[in-house]
Order: sequence, then C-alpha cells, then structure tokens
Amino acid sequence: MRVAIIGLGRMGAGIARRLMRAGHEIVAFDVAKEAVAALAEHGAIAATSLEDAATKFEGQKVFWVMLPAGEITETTIAQLADLAAPGDILIDGGNSFYKDDIRRAKVLAEKDIAYVDVGTSGGVWGFDRGFSMMVGGPAEAVAVIDPILESLAPGMGAIERTAGRGDDADPRPEKGYLHAGPAGAGHFVKMVHNGIEYGMMAAFAEGFDILKAKASDKLPEDERFDLNLPDIAETWRRGSVVASWLLDLTADALARDHALDQFSGNVADSGEGRWTVEAAMEEAVPAYVLSAALFARYRSRMETTFGDKVLSAMRYGFGGHVEPK
Amino acid sequence: MRVAIIGLGRMGAGIARRLMRAGHEIVAFDVAKEAVAALAEHGAIAATSLEDAATKFEGQKVFWVMLPAGEITETTIAQLADLAAPGDILIDGGNSFYKDDIRRAKVLAEKDIAYVDVGTSGGVWGFDRGFSMMVGGPAEAVAVIDPILESLAPGMGAIERTAGRGDDADPRPEKGYLHAGPAGAGHFVKMVHNGIEYGMMAAFAEGFDILKAKASDKLPEDERFDLNLPDIAETWRRGSVVASWLLDLTADALARDHALDQFSGNVADSGEGRWTVEAAMEEAVPAYVLSAALFARYRSRMETTFGDKVLSAMRYGFGGHVEPK
Amino acid sequence: MRVAIIGLGRMGAGIARRLMRAGHEIVAFDVAKEAVAALAEHGAIAATSLEDAATKFEGQKVFWVMLPAGEITETTIAQLADLAAPGDILIDGGNSFYKDDIRRAKVLAEKDIAYVDVGTSGGVWGFDRGFSMMVGGPAEAVAVIDPILESLAPGMGAIERTAGRGDDADPRPEKGYLHAGPAGAGHFVKMVHNGIEYGMMAAFAEGFDILKAKASDKLPEDERFDLNLPDIAETWRRGSVVASWLLDLTADALARDHALDQFSGNVADSGEGRWTVEAAMEEAVPAYVLSAALFARYRSRMETTFGDKVLSAMRYGFGGHVEPK
Amino acid sequence: MRVAIIGLGRMGAGIARRLMRAGHEIVAFDVAKEAVAALAEHGAIAATSLEDAATKFEGQKVFWVMLPAGEITETTIAQLADLAAPGDILIDGGNSFYKDDIRRAKVLAEKDIAYVDVGTSGGVWGFDRGFSMMVGGPAEAVAVIDPILESLAPGMGAIERTAGRGDDADPRPEKGYLHAGPAGAGHFVKMVHNGIEYGMMAAFAEGFDILKAKASDKLPEDERFDLNLPDIAETWRRGSVVASWLLDLTADALARDHALDQFSGNVADSGEGRWTVEAAMEEAVPAYVLSAALFARYRSRMETTFGDKVLSAMRYGFGGHVEPK
Repeated sequence: MRVAIIGLGRMGAGIARRLMRAGHEIVAFDVAKEAVAALAEHGAIAATSLEDAATKFEGQKVFWVMLPAGEITETTIAQLADLAAPGDILIDGGNSFYKDDIRRAKVLAEKDIAYVDVGTSGGVWGFDRGFSMMVGGPAEAVAVIDPILESLAPGMGAIERTAGRGDDADPRPEKGYLHAGPAGAGHFVKMVHNGIEYGMMAAFAEGFDILKAKASDKLPEDERFDLNLPDIAETWRRGSVVASWLLDLTADALARDHALDQFSGNVADSGEGRWTVEAAMEEAVPAYVLSAALFARYRSRMETTFGDKVLSAMRYGFGGHVEPK
Repeated sequence: MRVAIIGLGRMGAGIARRLMRAGHEIVAFDVAKEAVAALAEHGAIAATSLEDAATKFEGQKVFWVMLPAGEITETTIAQLADLAAPGDILIDGGNSFYKDDIRRAKVLAEKDIAYVDVGTSGGVWGFDRGFSMMVGGPAEAVAVIDPILESLAPGMGAIERTAGRGDDADPRPEKGYLHAGPAGAGHFVKMVHNGIEYGMMAAFAEGFDILKAKASDKLPEDERFDLNLPDIAETWRRGSVVASWLLDLTADALARDHALDQFSGNVADSGEGRWTVEAAMEEAVPAYVLSAALFARYRSRMETTFGDKVLSAMRYGFGGHVEPK
Repeated sequence: MRVAIIGLGRMGAGIARRLMRAGHEIVAFDVAKEAVAALAEHGAIAATSLEDAATKFEGQKVFWVMLPAGEITETTIAQLADLAAPGDILIDGGNSFYKDDIRRAKVLAEKDIAYVDVGTSGGVWGFDRGFSMMVGGPAEAVAVIDPILESLAPGMGAIERTAGRGDDADPRPEKGYLHAGPAGAGHFVKMVHNGIEYGMMAAFAEGFDILKAKASDKLPEDERFDLNLPDIAETWRRGSVVASWLLDLTADALARDHALDQFSGNVADSGEGRWTVEAAMEEAVPAYVLSAALFARYRSRMETTFGDKVLSAMRYGFGGHVEPK
Repeated sequence: MRVAIIGLGRMGAGIARRLMRAGHEIVAFDVAKEAVAALAEHGAIAATSLEDAATKFEGQKVFWVMLPAGEITETTIAQLADLAAPGDILIDGGNSFYKDDIRRAKVLAEKDIAYVDVGTSGGVWGFDRGFSMMVGGPAEAVAVIDPILESLAPGMGAIERTAGRGDDADPRPEKGYLHAGPAGAGHFVKMVHNGIEYGMMAAFAEGFDILKAKASDKLPEDERFDLNLPDIAETWRRGSVVASWLLDLTADALARDHALDQFSGNVADSGEGRWTVEAAMEEAVPAYVLSAALFARYRSRMETTFGDKVLSAMRYGFGGHVEPK
C-alpha cells in the first residue's frame, strides 16, 4: 500500500526503506532535501512539501509522521489535518506523550480523520531486525494500515512460541506488534516499555558497578577480586536468568573496551522515563525502581549537587566535620 | 570423568542426570534413599554414606556438594574434608556466601585439598537448557573439572556470537561458564547476578503494575485504558529493548492467567539479594535499584507496617487527620 | 485591617479567629451557615454570599480564600475576580498547585487585581502556635496584607535567633513568614516543604520499624531487643540530632499507645508530595528520598500489588517456586 | 562519683569537662600527653597509662572508653578487662557496632565485670547542651553510673513535657537518656538514630536542591523562581512541620553563605548508616529512605560511576546515542 513518511531521520528513513523492501509505495518528505533525494534513489516518490505529499494519493491518504516529539510534531499534524479529507489516516510514529494523542484524536475525529499513535522500539537495529510497535487508535484504521505494520514488525523469527499462549489469541503480538487500544494507548504502552527499560538498564549498571568495585584496594586484600567483566557478561548471555538483549549489548560493548573509556557516563533521558513516573503517581502505584533509574541519570550529569553541600553544612554544624574539597 | 554428587534435590538430580547423559560417571548420595535409588536407575553409582561415596574413587576424588546454603553445607564440607586426600577436589555448587568460600578454601588449602565454588543459574530449566555457571577456585582444579563444567553448560546454542569478542578471548564464557577467579569469586559473581535479577524483575513488576492500574476508575474516564497484558508481554518479546528470558516467563504466565490469580504475591527472597546490597555497602557503591527491589519483596509479605502507623500517628498529631481503618 | 475569609473549615476558622484576636476585622463567608454564625459570635461580620462579602468593604477589598484546592477554589476565585475592582487583593491560602497561581495571577493582573498565594503550614495547631506562611505575589500587595500575615505568624517566640543571620536580613522570616517571590512562589515553597515533610516522616517511620522489629523471633535470640519505643522517642527529643516537631508528635502518640493500635496505617497523601517529585523531574534533580516517601504511602493503602504477583509468576517460571498464599 | 575517661578527643574531653563541672572526679588518660595535661589543668586526675588509671580507684572501678570504633576500642577494652576486678564497670561510649557489644558483654560477664554501651549523640554541642545517651547493659551497673549519665544528659531544659506521657513512666528519657536494654541495646538504638538522621538530612538536601534548581534557565521563564534559601530555612524554623535542630543548623549555614561554597559536597558516612540498613535486611523490614540517604553519600564522593558508563554503552548499542564527554 501507499503511505507518506513525513520526517526522514534515522528512524523515518529506516521505516521507509523497510517498507519499500516489502513492496510498499513510499511518498517521502523531509525539510532536508538530501534526505528525500536519498530515499528517492531507493525508489521513493519524492515530495517537496506536505501539500505536495498530499497530492500523491488518490483516495484515502495515509500519513506517517516520524518527527521529534513536541512542537514540530504538533505543528505538522495540524498542517496535515488541514490537508486531510474524511476517512484519511494520520499516524504519529514518534515519541509523543499519550495525552497529546488523546487530545489530537478527539479534534481529528470531529473531521472524521483517524488518528493512530504508534510507539516504536527498535532503534538503529529496526531496519534489519524489524520494529516492535505498540499501536493506539480506532480498530478500522488500524486494520487499514495492518499491511504496513506487519511489514515493519520483526515477525516470529527464531523466537520460540510462548507455550501458554492459546491459538485463539490475537496473532499480531507474536509478530511483534500490538493494537493496544484507543488513541494514546500505543504511546502509553511504549512509554511504560521505556520506563521498564530504564529500570533494567539501571539494574545492570548497579550490578556491574558492584563487580567492578570488587577490585578496590579499600577492601580487605583477601576479599578483593579483579573480575573479567566482558567474560561475565558473555557467560550470562547463555542459560542465566538475566539473559536479555540489553545484556547482549553490554557484552558487546565490554568486549570492545572492558573499561568503557570511550563513554562519558553523562546519561541522557527522554520524556518516557519521566512520564512513566508521572503515570505511576497519577495511579498511586509505587515506582521505586523506575524512579531511581531515572534519578540516577539526572545525577550522572552533575558533578556535585547543592543538596550534597547542604549535607556537608549540617555535618559541620552538628559535628564540626570538615570535608575534603 | 567420575564425580560424586552430594545432595540430590531438584538441582542436584538435574546436574547428575545431565552429566550422565554426557557420559560421565556419577556417584550419587543423599540422605533420602529414594533419591539415590531414582538416580541409580538412570545409571548412577549409589552411595550409602559420604564415607561410602569416597570409596567409589581410585585416585583423585571429586565431590560436588549440592545442598542448601548454611549449616548442612558447612557440615558436609567439613566431613568431606576429613575423607579427602591431598589433590582431591571439593566443589560447593550451592548458594553459599562467598566469604564462607574464602574461609573454607584457606582451611582446605592447608591440607592441599582444592576448594571450588560454583554459582549455578538455570533453575528447573537447567537439565534441558544447561546450567550457567560461575566458578571460583585454583586454575588447576578448575581445569580438572572442565569436562564436567562443559557438559553442564548450555553451550553456544543458537545464540549469536558477540560481534566485538575477539578470538583470543577465553572460549568458556561463550559456552556459558566462567572461571571468575580464586575461591569465592564464583559465588560472588553469581550473587551479583541474582542482585541484578531482582532489579530486572522489579522493573517488570512496577511496569506491569502501571499498565494494569491504567484501567482504574480513579483516573479520568478518557485517560483510562483496559490493556491486554498477555499481548503486551508477547509483543515485547520480539524486537523490543526489554526482550529477555524474564519477559518470556512473564509472557507465558500471563498467557495462562492474565490476572495471575493463582499467585499470592508474597515474594520470598534468598540470601543473594541481601548480600549484594551488603557488598555494595562494603564497596561504598550506590545500589538504589537493587535495594529497592529487595525491599519490595519484604513489603510484599507484610499487610501493614508499624512505620505506616507511625506516619498515621504523626498526621493525626499535626493535622488531626483520621485515616480509614 | 479588614479581610474577608472565604471558607471557614478548620483552617479558615482558625485563621479568622486568630486575626480577630489580634484586632483585625473579619468578614466571614462559608456555604455552611452554621460556620458563619459560629464566627459571628466571636465578632466576625457575617456575609451571606460572595457578593454580600464584597459589599462589606469601602475602598480596597481583600479576600482570603481558604478552600480545598481544585474546582471549588478555581470557581470561587473566578467569581471574586468579577466582584473585585482594580487595586483589590485576592489571596489563595489553600493548597493550590503553584502553576495554577501563575496562570491566575496573569489573568487577574490584566484587571489590575493583585493575586497573592499563601502556603500555610501549622495544621490544627495554628490558632495557638501561629501559622507558618510562604507568600507569593507582587511586593506592594504583600506589603498591604503584612499586618494580617504578622498577626497570623508564630512570631519569634522562644526560638533562639540564628547566629549567622545578619541584621540587614528581612525581618519577616524570623517571625515565621516569608515573601518568597512572585505569584506561585509561595505555594511552590510550601509544596517543597511538604515534600521534605514526607521524607522526614518516612525516615522516622522506617527507623521505628527497625526498632520495633528488633524483638522479632526470626532473629537469633541473643540479638533480639524488646525496645521501649515511647522512651526512645522521648529521649531523642532532648539533645539528639533528630530532635524535631515531628518527633515530638511521635513521642506523644507513642506515649498514649505504644503499639499505635488505633491507627490503620493506610496513609493518605495530598498533591504536594506528588507535585514535589514532578518539580524535581522538571528540574532534572534526583529525589530518591522524597519519591520513596511518597510511594510508601501508596503502598500502605494496598494489600498486595499486581507487580508482586508478576514477581511470584516469574519465580515460579524459572525456579518452580510456589509461594504461600 | 569517680570515673576514668579513656580517650580525650573532642567527645571524650567534652564529657570529662561536663562531668567535672557537675562535681564528678575524673581520671584522665589518653596516649596524647597534652590532652591529659589540658584536662588536668581543669582538675582531672592525670593517668600515664591504663594501668596507672586503674590504680586511681579504691573499690569499684568505672572506666569510660571514648575511642574511635574498631581496633583501638577492641584492644583497649581487652586490656581494661585484664585490669578490672569482679564488680567493676566497663563503659564503651564510642560508636561500636552493637554485635561487638553483645560479644564483649558475654566474655566480661564470665569475669563478673559489667559491660555497658552508651550511644552518644550531641557532637560538638554536647558540652554546652548536654549529651543524648542511649545505654545498654545490666540494670544494676546502669544504676551505679546513673549520676554520671544524669550529669551528662541535657535535662528537661526548656522543652515542653510530652502531654501523653504518664507520671509512672521512667523519668530518665525526659532528661535525655535511656536505659534501652541489655548490652548492645544502647548502641543499637543510637545506630537507628543515626540512620534516621541520614534520612532526615537527605530529605532536606533533596528539598533544598529542588528549591535551588527552580531558578534554572532550563525551565520556562514564567515558571522560574530565584528563591532566597536562607529566608526559607529561617521561616520554617517557626511553626512549620519540618521545624527541627537539623533545620536550625541549615538555616545557620545558609545565613552565613547562601551558596554553601565553602563545602565540597563530598559527604562522608560512618558505620551507623550502613549498619542500620543491614539491621533492616536482617529483620526483612523495608528501608527505602534510609538506604537511599546512604547511597547519596557514596555517590556524592564519585565524579562518575562505571555503572553510568554501562548505561551510556547500552544506549549507544541500541540507539546509536553518543553522549557528551
């Protein structure tokens, strides 16, 4: 089927190319003309503007917006809404906040335009491995774009079936995509996915910290171990309970540089981690681990905190403790 | 090669059977005679006592103790030490605290008996999938038992090689086992493995809690989603960043019973989680996530805490707040 | 001076009475006529409606709204805005979210009406001890209501002066109130105050939990202590580092009932704790302790969590662990 | 009464001087002769060795050991045990681990020597304000040293009585000291006191961090506040729920230097914080806040962590994210 991809960054371009490889027709638009040209060489129909992209359809138009969450996505969707006719489908495949989806879907529904949000996981590996997708929106619209979703998804691959899964279950999750519910549900599930991801990553980070520090000369000499972290990560990949894709990536990074010296340790965070904690608070659900994982990222980017100085000041106040600068 | 397995519970029996299947000779002992008899039917050499087990060897004796950590392991190792001759090898494959290994190894080294600790992950799946093993002890002794370890380990299987891993790297980790260092290092690495496992599990637990509670009628009606948790877990298994064995298990459990009603949610914890936090404290390394994961298990087993009542009492004190019983 | 108090609940009535005792004239309004009548007996000028309250002023009108945060406060402020003339002052003394203050102040400023937000701490003790107040709004308006604020505040009392505080410092904080900044700043500071309060309370709660559980028969007999919690709290009140009003309240509660059996331990939380964590996330500042304190309150109100069952299910999956119902 | 003070550092000298001021006779010993000489000028009986100190008593000897916890305290107590006769009293007023107390008390009891542990809070302020003391040991021995304890304690002072405290309650806690239970109970209660102290301090630290960062130019301009932290701390000292000695100290420090620039923010931690978390783990009691407070101190002393680099490496692995050095 034909779909217009709006935004041809790493993710957008990967999606477009994977779809073309599967036989779909791509209308390609980006403000960067080189990005459009590059895709056109792969067979995409180049568009010079959103308006131009809209002209490339006869009948039902399907737009897949793949832009950074925030202002630019908001504006683009508003512009596309003006170009769309009743029955058209507008997909936000970026990392939007799910409440923005709910709001947009309501507005668009008044014009009979279907809004679909697709939370996409898979990063730079998606083109090869396929994209894991969590989709929100009206069932009819999701059915229309199912061929696209199936082509983008990883498929069953070599991963074993879940023994307990009945034959009457929805077949899509086994292929790596999900119709999660109405508009917003896709990004909500993707958001929690990322929250969990933060927590899992932090569990590995703390664990490897503990392994690494076991060689510290602050410990009694007969309790020190100089552990081989690349070998540990490699071992755990097979048969251990913590086997996971994140561990595979860690093993790879450690194998290349066991000290990870090329990395600064100034860890960025995106909206999803924060929104997950907000969602937990709205639901009054404890999120000790997911919040701690988020805070560790904040802390990683600070040399010291004012709060630490408040602690020092109190200790000086009650105990006369002077701490080393 | 020949090895005596002392302790034929689920893990011990699984190990014995996997070794026999690979052609090794097993001397089997357990205080439960039925367990010994059951293994003898599979071809094991039955022993009626530790002393008897010792007589089943000519030359170098190798004992693999597979008992619950604590008193019984301690006593058994002491008894075997008396039965052992210089050059023999004593393996603790249970979940001992690594400082106990360090202590025991020193004592046994004086008698020229090699002490090897094997931290074993793999649970009930080990017989089929192989056991992930982290080994501590003298290199010579570990070399002697290498045929056993290789037979027990999962092997490379279908899991892809780590791209960045050089050809000069130790081949054992790729097969799923590791010589981590001197005595104690095996159990130390296994301990941190379990600490990480607690953290990963807690990340999933919190995440699924947030997904589940999204249907709560305490939320505004247009922000509620009634999400299909089995489908979500299934989707994430393919191509998402949180793909992992723990997710596979969760997907299986949810597929069988999406409400998990058969489980009480009174979550036990073993020594490893606690020891990991202790190790972090000894090293002065932050362990926010791993400790929170541990505390959540404590809390899961309590209906209310005295601390909660202290909070209620303070709130009553300063604000006159009376809380519902 | 004359001020209309809108909302005569526990806090509003206490404020009105403390102001009258200091010689101020109170216009009293509440939808509950008895509440108005009760205050009229103490000398307040009864008002039968917001409109009526507005007629009780000649020249500059000052309204102090003391209602539950949310819808009712929002509506009342909108209604008062219609009754107010340029130069009038509208005070929100409730627990509003500071971003609502910023928004309201902007709207009212267009009509030349001054909006002042007063975060008030002191609870049921305020009438006797005075109210701690954190104020946001234009300096001129805050200067106008200074006589009210000074009368409500605790004053210096018996509390020693801070040694390091210079004589050129603002004298108001020493009396227990603060002009924190523009509109919203008052409630923001009050919000963080409550966040800290949650953290301090949780520190005490966990500490007393650890003291209490030291009598547990799960501990080795020679490591058990049956501690007298009321005596411990009492001792700490004098000369220890944790001496605080919250400890005073705890000591009082424990003295009355050392088991705190009258309390359920289902601990409520209000918006401030949650907003504090949100503010931390907006600023990318770690808030491990304040968030953990908040989550413990959520957890206190649950018997079990779905997340706990997810943990049980995973443990069953990899280890065959069946947990007690 | 007469008591030998062994160890004349800041705490030991303060205790000795406060006792002499109250009319007690002090035998003073320290390896630093100047420290002994300084106290002798205030009227203490100088001792040149532990043996010499022992000769300064007729009848029942009372030793108060005030040395850093660990090796030196252990050795000194062993030496004093050799010098002591049945009926003598040996006090450890330092910061020993309570399990060491339990062990020592058992050994000394065999010689009929009473061992008393005194957990002491009060720091550099103790000489003036009095020391808060938590005492463990046999009731008879504690009764013997009661005059010393009463002289050291702050007494009731200006602090109001706890309303709910009955007249039949032990009068000692109201004076600021406590017989907590058998040997070890004193240090255990003091240990938890310090754990709570860590938690309270962290609550303030996080709160002031959030207040400080509210001026950040990363926030939307109309949501920024440039708050006066010294004034905020000062305000909260009177009538607010967070009023406490720790807040008094913070207010003083901020009044002197609102940026706290003289402090490094490399926050030390002593054994008590760690032991409190260990105790919680032994009791299976959640300690989210107390552990987080401890970990923040560890983190304050690190520029970056290896764990942070593990996070960066994973992010690079799945998303190609390159983070700023």
